[in-house]
Amino acid sequence: MKMHSFTSIAVIIGILHSPTFKAQITSNENEVSVDKQFATDSLQIAELFRLALTESHSYEWLGDMCSNIGHRLSGSPQAAEAVEYSFDLMNDLNLDPWKQPVMVPVWKRGEKELAYFISDQGKKGELSILALGGSISTKDEGLLAPVVEVETWGDLEKLGEQGVKGKIVFFNEKMNPENLYTFHSYGHCVMHRWGGAVEAAKYGAVGVIVRSLNMRIDDYPHTGSMKYEEDITKIPAAAVSTKDAEELSELIKSGDKVSIMMRLMCETLEDTESYNVVGEIKGSENPDKVILVGGHLDSWDVGDGAHDDGAGVMQSLGVLELLKKLNYKPKNTLRVVFFMNEENGLRGAKAYSEFAESSNEVHIAAIESDRGGFTPRGFHVEGSESKLAKIAGWESILDKYGIHQVEKGGAGADIGPLKTDENVLIGFVPDSQRYFDHHHSANDTFDTVNKRELELGTASIASLVYLIDKYGL
Amino acid sequence: MKMHSFTSIAVIIGILHSPTFKAQITSNENEVSVDKQFATDSLQIAELFRLALTESHSYEWLGDMCSNIGHRLSGSPQAAEAVEYSFDLMNDLNLDPWKQPVMVPVWKRGEKELAYFISDQGKKGELSILALGGSISTKDEGLLAPVVEVETWGDLEKLGEQGVKGKIVFFNEKMNPENLYTFHSYGHCVMHRWGGAVEAAKYGAVGVIVRSLNMRIDDYPHTGSMKYEEDITKIPAAAVSTKDAEELSELIKSGDKVSIMMRLMCETLEDTESYNVVGEIKGSENPDKVILVGGHLDSWDVGDGAHDDGAGVMQSLGVLELLKKLNYKPKNTLRVVFFMNEENGLRGAKAYSEFAESSNEVHIAAIESDRGGFTPRGFHVEGSESKLAKIAGWESILDKYGIHQVEKGGAGADIGPLKTDENVLIGFVPDSQRYFDHHHSANDTFDTVNKRELELGTASIASLVYLIDKYGL
Repeated sequence: MKMHSFTSIAVIIGILHSPTFKAQITSNENEVSVDKQFATDSLQIAELFRLALTESHSYEWLGDMCSNIGHRLSGSPQAAEAVEYSFDLMNDLNLDPWKQPVMVPVWKRGEKELAYFISDQGKKGELSILALGGSISTKDEGLLAPVVEVETWGDLEKLGEQGVKGKIVFFNEKMNPENLYTFHSYGHCVMHRWGGAVEAAKYGAVGVIVRSLNMRIDDYPHTGSMKYEEDITKIPAAAVSTKDAEELSELIKSGDKVSIMMRLMCETLEDTESYNVVGEIKGSENPDKVILVGGHLDSWDVGDGAHDDGAGVMQSLGVLELLKKLNYKPKNTLRVVFFMNEENGLRGAKAYSEFAESSNEVHIAAIESDRGGFTPRGFHVEGSESKLAKIAGWESILDKYGIHQVEKGGAGADIGPLKTDENVLIGFVPDSQRYFDHHHSANDTFDTVNKRELELGTASIASLVYLIDKYGL
Repeated sequence: MKMHSFTSIAVIIGILHSPTFKAQITSNENEVSVDKQFATDSLQIAELFRLALTESHSYEWLGDMCSNIGHRLSGSPQAAEAVEYSFDLMNDLNLDPWKQPVMVPVWKRGEKELAYFISDQGKKGELSILALGGSISTKDEGLLAPVVEVETWGDLEKLGEQGVKGKIVFFNEKMNPENLYTFHSYGHCVMHRWGGAVEAAKYGAVGVIVRSLNMRIDDYPHTGSMKYEEDITKIPAAAVSTKDAEELSELIKSGDKVSIMMRLMCETLEDTESYNVVGEIKGSENPDKVILVGGHLDSWDVGDGAHDDGAGVMQSLGVLELLKKLNYKPKNTLRVVFFMNEENGLRGAKAYSEFAESSNEVHIAAIESDRGGFTPRGFHVEGSESKLAKIAGWESILDKYGIHQVEKGGAGADIGPLKTDENVLIGFVPDSQRYFDHHHSANDTFDTVNKRELELGTASIASLVYLIDKYGL
């Protein structure tokens, strides 16, 4: 697109000054009063967005963390560095930070994985794999075994011990492209990554490879957590890139007998101490009532952990920065929490919720950002119908900033344990189309985060915190 | 974000099956009847989106064009190849294609530009520049002259001939980050790129460099069109990357006397023949009433022209493909137009509108896609208030697909000449945050287009075409 003359420039400028034909929402009983009620708030929220696009530091903090520290798996030296960096950031913002101790698992990938396939027809090729988080290692010389492809638990059952014993099971379910909200497709496929090693071992499998949870066809393997169960033999498990999964599947379907060699050098060490990092602005009226905003500081051990979830923690911190810049004096305590160990244990979430339960505080709302630093779309809310309706009622003033999908839905893993009958849990929902291009892979790097998209998210969450604090729920 | 157990998977799946708290829109008098009226349409539109995410070829066609042909400046061999490729695609879809001849300008960049700055304090550095489209060349040995920095026309006036004569004028206005819709910021700054050489020459300047129209700080210079005027000396003009613009400005503001050397080897040749490429599905009831959907086939001569506007033409073609896959029999003629020469002349738009005026057809609506292949947000509409209200009324069924900003606004440069008192012009509006990272630069490449975002745009436009065809305007 270009501008051809000053006339056409005027047309473009006109777009922004034109009246909008957007309808007003009607979930509140009285439309007119809603409009009046929010007149001042609209100005405050406009200022939050202006500040986000000009003065927020979410993007800069994220860039510094990604380039100076990089990925931050629980228990790693980088995670320890990230804790100190986060504490310092909160301290610089005068948020009275503290570190909440939490014991975390320590899993190490070790030497880079090796894998290739070989067929009875002499075809051979490398496979791009990443051990799943928590996997045991193979022997030093690797594991070589025939491969069998399945898509569902049902396929595995049909094959039975006869078809599976002594083999590597290849789970090749594709993420369903039909879902508009990509997390829906993830929610379906992830069971094979999480439980595949257990289910395959029940039939005597010796290893598992899982198609990466990625909607694109590319060369990046995507790791993630998996489980073992007591009394079920532990077998090594890895994710393979979607491109290699397609190639492998084609070869197997051609009738060739295919074997896979894979070598994983991972190990699990003793738990070690780490921390949630917590900061706050004390409430002027209700210091014991808390509105929490947070994400998780840890990441997988590939890429920068930029979208997952560097974006979420730096947006959460940015929310408090923006409200300070606005000179907003909250009635309730606004608390930011950088949770540790979301990816492989949720220990930080448990530690924080135990603290919350034992304290005299009440968490009236908790907001989590853990779906990437993409352009804002809405919020998913867990809470009573009346509280949901109240939040949905605010959509009318947030729509022009991109927030048009305020819906009932799961809020997030780290804040989940904080749920009570009285409070509200909220997940920030950015556009989901690109998330699984990056998630848990070497492609989750800072250069794939757009500053404006990230900061618009910061402003969206800040606006919601402002409204909740001002009007309650 | 991860899934920790089957419980949390269930939560995620629950998100999608939960009732929505989105309010219904009220721009139509009778809400209930709107809901009933659109019940069937909702199913058809859901199917359009499903088809877009599973069977559309917009992304594949774009990828083929970007990798096999690349950028496509009017009058270039690549533009000629792209015409043939487009004709063949339309032919394969049985759209009875034809090529509409149009004479286009031929401007060549020539040998790669060279530029550096040098200060009286001995500082020296390279500058990343691109000649503006249409610029004359410098002499073979380049142009060396002192540089003077301005931000506005007012600055230029204040400096006057005394401050400008014999110098290179450096227009360094930044795109305003405060605008949510980034085209607004573009609309303001682009006047310096378009008119800077004329205004500076009036005061005796010998050359112009313009800060690239990019909201990021990076190394990509962004080209674009510029004008000369009769009786005003033509001087060479180039765009400089935002990073170098910042550096240069800092040096100038430090008090150093700075000169710039730049060498442009561009030339303008005789006009040559090229083509709009046009295809259609004939209307079953009103073959002479046309609903047009289009974008422009030409691009600047850097990058792939992927977002600008390969995305738009392939979405337009995808719209007709999707409606065919839906087995939809349109009442009106649905026509796709790949316009030639939007970037530096709009000759294709003029040729098409002349044809439209001289034919017996009536264009009841025209939709343009020329704002990048990003995730959908809405439509900008030019037309009577009642027609605008009708289109805005459809937002209720499109909101869940991301379409929530149906507003009055400029539709697009290529369809602009088709405006009548009776018809409606519509611009497809994807999310604008990332557009100027790519626009008119070497960074406008296919790998920066996300398949799902692109195809959701195709489905959004197809849905609107379906509704306009079925219900009229």
